Amino acid sequence: MHRFLYLTVLSTFCTLGGIGSIAAQEPAPDTAAVAPPAVVQTLADAYRDAADSIITAALADSFAYQRLAELVDTFGPRFSGTRNLEDAIDWILARMKADSLENVRGEEVMVPRWVRGEESAELLVPREMALSFIGLGGSVGTPRRGITAEALVVSSFSDLEAHADQARDRIVVYNAPFTTYGETVRYRWAGASAAAKAGAVASLVRSVTPHSLNTPHTGSMGYEEGVRKIPHGAITVEDALLLQRLQDRGETIIIKLKMGAHYRGDALSRNVVAEIAGREQPEEVVVMGGHIDSWDVGQGAMDDGGGCVAAWEALRLLQKLNLRPRRTIRVVLWTNEENGLRGGQAYQDKYANQLDNHILAIESDEGVFKPQGFGFTGSPEALAILRDIAALLEPIGADSIAEGGGGADIGPIMRKGVPGMGLNVDGTRYFWYHHTGADTIDKLDPHELNLCVAALAVMAYVVADMPERLPR
Amino acid sequence: MHRFLYLTVLSTFCTLGGIGSIAAQEPAPDTAAVAPPAVVQTLADAYRDAADSIITAALADSFAYQRLAELVDTFGPRFSGTRNLEDAIDWILARMKADSLENVRGEEVMVPRWVRGEESAELLVPREMALSFIGLGGSVGTPRRGITAEALVVSSFSDLEAHADQARDRIVVYNAPFTTYGETVRYRWAGASAAAKAGAVASLVRSVTPHSLNTPHTGSMGYEEGVRKIPHGAITVEDALLLQRLQDRGETIIIKLKMGAHYRGDALSRNVVAEIAGREQPEEVVVMGGHIDSWDVGQGAMDDGGGCVAAWEALRLLQKLNLRPRRTIRVVLWTNEENGLRGGQAYQDKYANQLDNHILAIESDEGVFKPQGFGFTGSPEALAILRDIAALLEPIGADSIAEGGGGADIGPIMRKGVPGMGLNVDGTRYFWYHHTGADTIDKLDPHELNLCVAALAVMAYVVADMPERLPR
Repeated sequence: MHRFLYLTVLSTFCTLGGIGSIAAQEPAPDTAAVAPPAVVQTLADAYRDAADSIITAALADSFAYQRLAELVDTFGPRFSGTRNLEDAIDWILARMKADSLENVRGEEVMVPRWVRGEESAELLVPREMALSFIGLGGSVGTPRRGITAEALVVSSFSDLEAHADQARDRIVVYNAPFTTYGETVRYRWAGASAAAKAGAVASLVRSVTPHSLNTPHTGSMGYEEGVRKIPHGAITVEDALLLQRLQDRGETIIIKLKMGAHYRGDALSRNVVAEIAGREQPEEVVVMGGHIDSWDVGQGAMDDGGGCVAAWEALRLLQKLNLRPRRTIRVVLWTNEENGLRGGQAYQDKYANQLDNHILAIESDEGVFKPQGFGFTGSPEALAILRDIAALLEPIGADSIAEGGGGADIGPIMRKGVPGMGLNVDGTRYFWYHHTGADTIDKLDPHELNLCVAALAVMAYVVADMPERLPR
Repeated sequence: MHRFLYLTVLSTFCTLGGIGSIAAQEPAPDTAAVAPPAVVQTLADAYRDAADSIITAALADSFAYQRLAELVDTFGPRFSGTRNLEDAIDWILARMKADSLENVRGEEVMVPRWVRGEESAELLVPREMALSFIGLGGSVGTPRRGITAEALVVSSFSDLEAHADQARDRIVVYNAPFTTYGETVRYRWAGASAAAKAGAVASLVRSVTPHSLNTPHTGSMGYEEGVRKIPHGAITVEDALLLQRLQDRGETIIIKLKMGAHYRGDALSRNVVAEIAGREQPEEVVVMGGHIDSWDVGQGAMDDGGGCVAAWEALRLLQKLNLRPRRTIRVVLWTNEENGLRGGQAYQDKYANQLDNHILAIESDEGVFKPQGFGFTGSPEALAILRDIAALLEPIGADSIAEGGGGADIGPIMRKGVPGMGLNVDGTRYFWYHHTGADTIDKLDPHELNLCVAALAVMAYVVADMPERLPR
């Protein structure tokens, strides 16, 4: 069934005064038509007072925004392997302890250390012009003198295939228009190996975005096993369109690419962990968070400083409101989501034998814009329960639970069977700023961030506190 | 009166077949009530067929857009004193001749040659971070080692005054939010001297824009006579807001500014001129155009390649339609609007003794977005006539004639009494791209450009052809 009425048996007390007096009984069997009506409550009924308290507290001030601003202004981008990231983690750990959160700790993770180095792309022919360029994370570099080659502009992988005979010794430029992130990012992720297979010496992608002010977007890329590794970078939408027009006019295009990109040895980083221990089943865990690392441009305010601070603030609010749930709520700020996913993997490794007791994993990594609800990956029974809970978020318009959802950091534990959720938000502007110098705190709104805090706090609290475990 | 019915006496034939058969008489005197009614026509009535032909031709294809794309792609930015600009002018002159326009010529103008040089701004304290920076045209440079100084962030000139005692030896940062261009650009234009008067060693302005993806905007600046010249540049909205937040938190901010900016000797440039000579009063001129120079970033597609090509295309269409008006239509693509206005001044100097016969001057320099009509500076009588003519543009929604308008290049001749008009367009996005690397052809729409061509062609043709001179 799609709409599932979850009848709660609230035989235990709730810690918050406002919901401490809820009477509950077993649901009436179908045959009990003449008996007095049972007191039947949905989860939404049972937790309305608690949820309203959380929402009110979350919207009371701009503390979350100020905290996020201080974090991102003080440390700037938090790229894996950098001092900025580890200093930011130290700062967060100290403040989490000052917030009186429980079991605050950094859990060590070795992360890759990709170094961008000096980089540039220059149009030489038909005229000299600096292209607005950013290398893609994980790319190999060029020789020190750079790579100078004729360009071949293609609009898609199939267009490349159709012109594969012209790709040898060229720099392949993927001028793929933005459709969806999932579709368009394929050129960023897999473009280098596809070009290398056709004999190209380097490849460039049009930045993955629907809106540009000559804005280059970075991001990670991968190489196929057994295919020659060629340098791979991003140019702006504007420059990709220019190269396309030049080619369409029959011009020969020559580009000089220089990339100092290389890997150094892995570096030590940490997943940041803080908890409110469950009062009855502390071994059962609702885990919630975002990723504390970012790309090396902008401030990583949206991706994903905002998700981290929203989860952290959700926990702080519950603690401040004395809402200690039946089960443990664990906030984790995973490291190295952007270019390795080592944090999410390390978490799965570390807690491998406790995943059966991971009730739910929630990630916020789509920006802390106005929340619409959550996406959920799990059983239909769990989905129905979560939809009941989400009704508590109707006052802030965040009551939608879509099928499908999760997050990169919780991907490893979701693949081990943990139900997963992602906070869904108004995504209009996310890819304008994604992985650019424009991912800065001014793009976010204090009230919208508070709404995200409220949505996360209500959802995590109710799932952690409700009498029955969320079914798998 | 506001709405003025202009009674035309069409005693001469029109060159276009469609309007060649209009019967006309002297308007009936007030006392001739018993005489047969005069054939009374508004200008809009008389020129409807011609205007419709022009509009149809203007909207027929994307030739104007393709021409503009080829211009800006081939030559890139066209900054005063550069080879790009002069090569672009040569290209245009050759094509204007191939278009069979008349009296095609370059009129020589000496233009200033400001050279940007290497430039950078770096935050040193409280943390190291490259600021996204662009110097402002006309600024002096820094010493080679740069200027390293503590910053003082102010929100306005009055805020600077209130903190003038803290400005000595500082880099003053104007963090003025965008309201209107006219209001906000004051910090770009006059910020250096105001800061210097308070003892500052350099000054930075927040880029003059309502929308930023960490996008620096350049533009020209000036120094007050007798005030020490200090280097003056622009940072992005994002970075200005960051510096503001750091200051608000009590942080000491230290910035290192390096600018290689300097002037070299004046360079030779040209105003581009092409005409359709008038068939009856060739000495009477409607002048129309934009400026062919641009800033040294982006492509100057919007500012003002689009205005230039729109005026040029308007003339080409009239020529193609065999619409030779009574008076001369002269297209001028002025040079050096951006950082000197020497082209507009040289035009005024050269034609000083012919300005009485300049019937109207029209400029397009607000982008070739969807046109709404024109702004006009001149007599109420002329305004009323132009409103009648503009009714011909109602089919394309460009029939509004607002009071007040003109353009920088036609400013010198307007100050000598020539009535002036500016093409008014949808200005929503103009200042997003203005003076940035994002001023590229992809921001423009072929159909909207065609609408601008149509509006300019209809207005110029009717004013140049109508029996009576536009009154001053």
